[in-house]
Amino acid sequence: MKSLATLAIAAAAFTLAAPVSAQSFAKPEDAIKYRQGAFRVMSAHFGALGAMANNRAPFDPQAAARHGDVIALVSHLPFAGFAAGTDKGENTRAKAEIWTEQPKFRAAAEKMQSEVGKLAAAAKTGNLDNLKAAFGPAAGSCKACHDDFRRD
Amino acid sequence: MKSLATLAIAAAAFTLAAPVSAQSFAKPEDAIKYRQGAFRVMSAHFGALGAMANNRAPFDPQAAARHGDVIALVSHLPFAGFAAGTDKGENTRAKAEIWTEQPKFRAAAEKMQSEVGKLAAAAKTGNLDNLKAAFGPAAGSCKACHDDFRRD
Repeated sequence: MKSLATLAIAAAAFTLAAPVSAQSFAKPEDAIKYRQGAFRVMSAHFGALGAMANNRAPFDPQAAARHGDVIALVSHLPFAGFAAGTDKGENTRAKAEIWTEQPKFRAAAEKMQSEVGKLAAAAKTGNLDNLKAAFGPAAGSCKACHDDFRRD
Repeated sequence: MKSLATLAIAAAAFTLAAPVSAQSFAKPEDAIKYRQGAFRVMSAHFGALGAMANNRAPFDPQAAARHGDVIALVSHLPFAGFAAGTDKGENTRAKAEIWTEQPKFRAAAEKMQSEVGKLAAAAKTGNLDNLKAAFGPAAGSCKACHDDFRRD
């Protein structure tokens, strides 16, 4: 159980992780690619966990725990990439509401971070039913933000 | 010092982190975007750390420690995205040698993971000279792999 405990500490520690600062991006495109990159990483690990939660892949408790940790850690990164002036670009689906409704956007981000934190904790229990129970609310928190703040 | 110790544990724990499996990618493009996303995230945090190491930004020990941890953790992720059949795509600069010279590619990846692990440890000492000393070898390990395995 030592490794699971250690991973729990890892996840807890990373709720403190500060993202790169907006000043780190030389160009708006860099910020856009950074946030998209972080979401891509989350998406792949979320998909792998979802496959287990939805019985499309065998439940692998160790892999599930690791996917949950990656998702929880990376969930804190992308939002630095939504700096002012990064609302326009060839390849972004970000809606203007991200910047015009900052408190709502921030709340949606924090809701997602909270839900994927719970998902990571559930994945670490080694119990598939716990994973299933936590997966829906986490997926819902992703979708809610996409619905409001991302173009189709 | 507690938070620094906790982050050290976080970094240590994540050396164990298994990436998503190749089977998680429905299409080659998904694997390509995943590995590029992970490298983008690393690159941004590496750039922020490099700015401190090269006196282009003020040394912020706490931020440096966090950047180092993000880099070290994410360094273990992208290589699952180099699955067989993902050598061709519109938007990849991956050279065929990645697949034809697997042991060499793997060694270059492990060298980079080792060097950024040392960089993360150096960043946590709170000493800018340590950060400077570790930054060059880490940057060199990135460049060496790019030179051999990435098209210009």
